[in-house]
Amino acid sequence: MRIGVLTGGGDCPGLNAVIRGVVRKGVQTYGHEFVGFRDGWKGPLQGLTRPLGVPEVRGILPRGGTILGSSRTNPFKIENGVEQIKNNLAELGIDALVAIGGEDTLGVASKLTDLGVNVVGVPKTIDNDLGATDYTFGFDTAVNIAMEAIDRLHTTAESHHRCLVVEVMGRHAGWIALHSGLAGGANVILLPERKFDIDQVCAYVEKRFEIQYAPIVVVSEGAIPDEGDMTLQSGEVDAFGHVRLGGIGQWLAGEIEKRTGKEARTVVLGHIQRGGTPTAFDRVLATRFGLGAIDAVHAGDFGKMVALRGTEIVRVPLQEATRELKTVPVERYDEVEVFFGN
Amino acid sequence: MRIGVLTGGGDCPGLNAVIRGVVRKGVQTYGHEFVGFRDGWKGPLQGLTRPLGVPEVRGILPRGGTILGSSRTNPFKIENGVEQIKNNLAELGIDALVAIGGEDTLGVASKLTDLGVNVVGVPKTIDNDLGATDYTFGFDTAVNIAMEAIDRLHTTAESHHRCLVVEVMGRHAGWIALHSGLAGGANVILLPERKFDIDQVCAYVEKRFEIQYAPIVVVSEGAIPDEGDMTLQSGEVDAFGHVRLGGIGQWLAGEIEKRTGKEARTVVLGHIQRGGTPTAFDRVLATRFGLGAIDAVHAGDFGKMVALRGTEIVRVPLQEATRELKTVPVERYDEVEVFFGN
Amino acid sequence: MRIGVLTGGGDCPGLNAVIRGVVRKGVQTYGHEFVGFRDGWKGPLQGLTRPLGVPEVRGILPRGGTILGSSRTNPFKIENGVEQIKNNLAELGIDALVAIGGEDTLGVASKLTDLGVNVVGVPKTIDNDLGATDYTFGFDTAVNIAMEAIDRLHTTAESHHRCLVVEVMGRHAGWIALHSGLAGGANVILLPERKFDIDQVCAYVEKRFEIQYAPIVVVSEGAIPDEGDMTLQSGEVDAFGHVRLGGIGQWLAGEIEKRTGKEARTVVLGHIQRGGTPTAFDRVLATRFGLGAIDAVHAGDFGKMVALRGTEIVRVPLQEATRELKTVPVERYDEVEVFFGN
Amino acid sequence: MRIGVLTGGGDCPGLNAVIRGVVRKGVQTYGHEFVGFRDGWKGPLQGLTRPLGVPEVRGILPRGGTILGSSRTNPFKIENGVEQIKNNLAELGIDALVAIGGEDTLGVASKLTDLGVNVVGVPKTIDNDLGATDYTFGFDTAVNIAMEAIDRLHTTAESHHRCLVVEVMGRHAGWIALHSGLAGGANVILLPERKFDIDQVCAYVEKRFEIQYAPIVVVSEGAIPDEGDMTLQSGEVDAFGHVRLGGIGQWLAGEIEKRTGKEARTVVLGHIQRGGTPTAFDRVLATRFGLGAIDAVHAGDFGKMVALRGTEIVRVPLQEATRELKTVPVERYDEVEVFFGN
Repeated sequence: MRIGVLTGGGDCPGLNAVIRGVVRKGVQTYGHEFVGFRDGWKGPLQGLTRPLGVPEVRGILPRGGTILGSSRTNPFKIENGVEQIKNNLAELGIDALVAIGGEDTLGVASKLTDLGVNVVGVPKTIDNDLGATDYTFGFDTAVNIAMEAIDRLHTTAESHHRCLVVEVMGRHAGWIALHSGLAGGANVILLPERKFDIDQVCAYVEKRFEIQYAPIVVVSEGAIPDEGDMTLQSGEVDAFGHVRLGGIGQWLAGEIEKRTGKEARTVVLGHIQRGGTPTAFDRVLATRFGLGAIDAVHAGDFGKMVALRGTEIVRVPLQEATRELKTVPVERYDEVEVFFGN
Repeated sequence: MRIGVLTGGGDCPGLNAVIRGVVRKGVQTYGHEFVGFRDGWKGPLQGLTRPLGVPEVRGILPRGGTILGSSRTNPFKIENGVEQIKNNLAELGIDALVAIGGEDTLGVASKLTDLGVNVVGVPKTIDNDLGATDYTFGFDTAVNIAMEAIDRLHTTAESHHRCLVVEVMGRHAGWIALHSGLAGGANVILLPERKFDIDQVCAYVEKRFEIQYAPIVVVSEGAIPDEGDMTLQSGEVDAFGHVRLGGIGQWLAGEIEKRTGKEARTVVLGHIQRGGTPTAFDRVLATRFGLGAIDAVHAGDFGKMVALRGTEIVRVPLQEATRELKTVPVERYDEVEVFFGN
Repeated sequence: MRIGVLTGGGDCPGLNAVIRGVVRKGVQTYGHEFVGFRDGWKGPLQGLTRPLGVPEVRGILPRGGTILGSSRTNPFKIENGVEQIKNNLAELGIDALVAIGGEDTLGVASKLTDLGVNVVGVPKTIDNDLGATDYTFGFDTAVNIAMEAIDRLHTTAESHHRCLVVEVMGRHAGWIALHSGLAGGANVILLPERKFDIDQVCAYVEKRFEIQYAPIVVVSEGAIPDEGDMTLQSGEVDAFGHVRLGGIGQWLAGEIEKRTGKEARTVVLGHIQRGGTPTAFDRVLATRFGLGAIDAVHAGDFGKMVALRGTEIVRVPLQEATRELKTVPVERYDEVEVFFGN
Repeated sequence: MRIGVLTGGGDCPGLNAVIRGVVRKGVQTYGHEFVGFRDGWKGPLQGLTRPLGVPEVRGILPRGGTILGSSRTNPFKIENGVEQIKNNLAELGIDALVAIGGEDTLGVASKLTDLGVNVVGVPKTIDNDLGATDYTFGFDTAVNIAMEAIDRLHTTAESHHRCLVVEVMGRHAGWIALHSGLAGGANVILLPERKFDIDQVCAYVEKRFEIQYAPIVVVSEGAIPDEGDMTLQSGEVDAFGHVRLGGIGQWLAGEIEKRTGKEARTVVLGHIQRGGTPTAFDRVLATRFGLGAIDAVHAGDFGKMVALRGTEIVRVPLQEATRELKTVPVERYDEVEVFFGN
C-alpha cells in the first residue's frame, strides 16, 4: 500500500512521535510506502508532498512540532476542494490516509470517509478535550510546563507578598488549568466550565494572604466571570467599566488589585506550552497511537480513529471524535476546591 | 476521628502529595485530626509519632521523599508486633490508619484489617507492578528521569561510535524499561518478563551500527539471559565463564564488547530514579489518591485501597494489592520490537 | 558579633544561597550571631526581625526567592528614616549589617556607611547590569529559563510558519536578551542599548522566512525603535498611529504582521524568569558571595561589597555598585549580528 | 580560504555550538569555505571528510555531541602520520585547521604548528582543568546535571536514613565535584587534589546523621584515600583487605557502612554528565569560542587557541593549553569545608 500522512491544526508535542510510529511499523512490519503531505489538508488539496520513509523519521521522536508542517485549511470550505483531494490522491497513487489532528482535521477525515476516501485518524488536542479518548498526547507536556512555571512563581509570590495570576491554555475546556493548578499547588483555579464570582476569587486571595504568603491563581484563557462580557476585545470597555487591555489573566489581576488592595501580577504562558520536547507520557502515547493507526490501515479498518481507554489503544468511529467536547466534570472541579484559598 | 498516617517501603516521588491530600481534606472538609507515624510500620509498632496538621503539609507537594520517613519493618515478623500496634493505637486514640506503601506495607494493612484495625491503603510502587490499579504514582517520574538520561546518551553514542547500556529499575516487572526505552528511542529493550538471547541482542547492536550511529540498550535490573545464572553476586564466575563485577548492565556491556568487538559502556541510573520532585502526572495522581483515601476513611470503608481505573479513582479490596504482580504483557513487548536494532 | 541580614529589591534566584553562606560560615567558623531583617530596609526601619541561625538556613540552598522577604523601601525617603534605623540597630545590639540587593539597596548601604553604620554589601541584579562585578547571581538562571522557552518555540515557529517574538527582562541593559538569544539561536536580538530600525527587523524576518522556517525575535522589555515613542502606555496611540496594547513584544509582533504579511505571535516571559531554583552557576556564585561577605564583616572591612572578577571573589567599595550601569558593549552586540536573519 | 574543522577526545556539550560559530561567521562574514574532518585527527590522517557549510550547521546549536564524530587518534604515534596529514591537507586544498579538543588534541595541534601547519585551537575539557582559560564549555552542563542528581538524592537520603555517595567525573581535577557538591549542598566533597582520610569522612557522615537526616558525599572518580592503593582494578584486593568491585564511589559506600554501621548507597553518574543539550552558559561560551577561532584564522594568527579571561575571549599560544593542569587550588577547597558534616 501507498499511504499518505498529514498533521492539521495547532502544533502539539508528540506529533513527530506519531509520524515515526506510523512509518516505522508501516515500512518494517508491513512493507508499505509513505508520502508526507505538507501543512494539513492543504497538502492533499494542492498536492504538496515531501518524502517520508524510515530515514526521514530518524531522530524526530524527541522533537516538538511536526516535520510535515500544519495548517487549518478545510477542503470543504474550498470550491471543488474534495474533488481536488480525490484527484491528487489518485494521481499520487495513494491508497489510504493517516490524518493526525483535532476536531476540525478529524471532522474533514470523517466526511471524506463517507465520500469513499480511506482514512484512519489520530486524535490530537493539547487541551485534552476529546470525548472519545481518556487522554490525548501533548496535554501532559503542556501541564508539566505550566506546573514548572507555577513552581517558579511560588517563590516570587512569597518574597514580594504579591498575588500571581497564571493564564494557561484552554478555550472551552479547563483540563490544563485543573491539572497544572492541582499539581502546582494553586490557591484558586478558574475554568471555562464554571463561571466564576470575582468576589469569591478575591475572598480566596485575601484568605490566603492572611494564612501564609501570597496566592497563585491559575486561570484558563477561556474562563469567564459570572457578570460582565468577557468576549470583549482588548481595548474595549467591559461590564465592570474598565478598559480591557489583554486576556482574562490581565483582567483578573486588575480586579484583584482594585478589590483587595494587594499587588497582583499576570503571567500568560502562551505558546511555550505547546512547543518543545514531549514528556515520556506523551512520547509513549503518541508512539502507541502511531502504531495503532498503521495497524488499522493495514487491517483496512477505515473511518476509525485510535483512542486510549485505560491502558489500551482501541479503535473508535471517526464521528466520535467530533461528537462532543470533553469538559471537566463537576466532580473533578469540586474535588480540588478543598485547596482553594488555603 | 483521629487518624494515623504512615509511609512504608522504598521512597517514591508523590508520597508527600498523598499525605497532603489526606490531611488537607481530612481537616478542612471533615474536621478530622491526624497523627503522623514515623518510618512505616515501625511508627505504630514503637509509638513513634510526629505532629501532622495543615501547617505540617504546607509546601510539601513538590518535594520528593516522605516527611514521615520510611522503613521495611514488618510487625508480623516481630514477636507481639500486632499486639504492640493495637496497644499503641489505642493509647494514642487512633480510630483509623491510612497506610501508603507497596505490596509489603499493604500486605500488613490487609492482615491488620482482618484483626480489627481500621485501615485504608494507598498503593505505592515505583515499578508500576501492582495489578489492581492502572498506574501508581512515582512511575511517571522515574520514566521521565530515565528517558532524559537516554536522550543525553544518544549524542554520546553517536559521537563515539559506542554502544551504551542503560540499567534502569525493575526487579520483577519491566515497566520502567519498556516506557523509558520506548520514549527514549532505545534500540533494544530487555525486561525481566522475557529471558533474552545475548546473540540476538548482539545482532541488534551490530545491525544498528551498520544503519546509523551507535545503539542504546535499555535493560531492567531484573532482566536475565536465557542461559547462565544471573542470580550470581558481583565477584562470582557466571555461566559464561566471566567474573561478574556488577549488575546485568555491566555484564551486558562486557558481553557486547567481547562478541561484537565494539566499545560498550554502562550507565546504572540507580537512586536518581526515585528521588526529587514528582512530575505533574504523579502529583495529580498522588493528590487524588490522598483525597480518595480520606473519603474512604470518612465513609468507614476500611480494608480497601484506592486505585486508578481509566481516569477514575476507585476503591478495591486491600487483598487485591497483593494478589498478583502486574508484569508487562506479551503484546506490549511485541509492540515495541519494531524499534529494535533500528 | 551580632549581625543583621536583609534582602532588598526584586527577588532573584540565589538570594537564599547567599543568606545560607553568610550564616553558616558566620556561626560555624566565626561564632557570630545573626538577626534576620524582614522585607529589605523596611526591616531595620520598623524593627521587623525573624530568627536567623543554622537551623533556619537548612534546605534553602535550592529554593528561589528570599526567606527574609523583600521590599523597595528607601529609608532616605522617609522622615527620620536613618535615625530610626540607627536606633533599632542599637536597641537590637546589631554590630554590622549584610545588605543584599541592587543599585537602590546598595545605594542606601553606601550612604549608611558614611553615616557610621557598619555595612557589607552583596550585589544582586538579575539583569547583570552592575559594573563592578563580572556577573551577578540570578542572571544565569534567568538566561537558562529564557533559552529553554526559545528552544520550545522553535518547533512551533517551524510547524506554523509563524514569526515568534519573545520579550525578556532588561529595562536598561540587554544582557538577558543577548545571552538567551545567542544561546537559543534567535534570528534577531533587540536590546535597550541600540535603538532598532523596524524595517531592518522586518527585512531579517523576511530573509529568514525565505531561507528556512520561521524566525524567532528576542527583545528586551526596554528595547525601543529608532522612531516613535515607546514610552507610551498601553492603550495610547503611538507614533506609528497604532493603539499600544501591551509592551514592546506585542508592538513588534503587530508591526511585523502589518509590514511583512506573515503571522507573528508574542510570548512575554515575565515573572517566570525570576522565580524557582537557581542554576549551579548561580548557587555557586551566590554561596561564594555569602562566604565572602561574612569574611569582610569579620575582617571589619565595611563599606565594601563582594564582586566576581574572573574566577575570584574580591571586595570593592560600595560606591562602585551604583556608579554606572553595565550595558552591553557595542562589540558584544556586533559579535552576534552574524546570526541575524539567518 | 579553505578551512578544515575537527573535534577530538571525549564528547562534551557545546562542540556543535563551536562548529556552528566557526562556520557561520567564516562563510557569512569572511566568505571562507569549510571541510569537516571526521573523528578527530583520524580525519586528516585518513582523509575522511564530510560536507560542512551553513546548511550542515543549522539546528545543531542545542544538540550535544559532535556532528563530526570524535576519536583519540594521535598522528604522532602513527608511522608517517604527520606526513599523511600534510599530504591530505595539500590534496584537499586546506589552508588552515580549526582543532577543537583537549590536552591531547591541542598537543598535536601545537606540534603540527611547529611543522608548518596552520592551526587554531579551541580548548575542550569537561573537567575544566585547562590552565589557560577561566572556563571551558561543557563543564557548566556537567555540573548542572550532577547538581540535579544530588538535589534528587536529598529526598531519598532523608526518607531512608541512608548515606548516599555520588561519584562524578574528574580524574585529575576535582572541579565538577567541587561545584556540583557546593551547588547541591553536599555534606562531604572529595577531590583528587587532596588525599582523604576515611576516618574523617566517616566522622562527617556520623555528625550529619546526628544533626539532621542523612548525608550526601560527592566524590571525584579520581579521589584517593591517604592510605591504600586506589589504582587497583575492580576485582583485586585493596590495602584495606577488601575486594574492589567498582570505582571509588563503591569503595567509599562499603567503607562507610563498615565503619559507621549506617546504610550507604552509591550512584555513579558516568556518561549522562557529558551528553545532551548544553546549558546557556556553555552555548554562549562555545559560540563565542567558535567566533573567536574563525577570527584568529582569518587574521592568520595561527598556533593560538581561544580562551576565556573574565568576560573576554582572548588568544593564547597553543603550548599554554598543555603546559599545566588547572587543579582546584587549596583556598577553593578550604572555602567549602564549612559545609562538611553539617
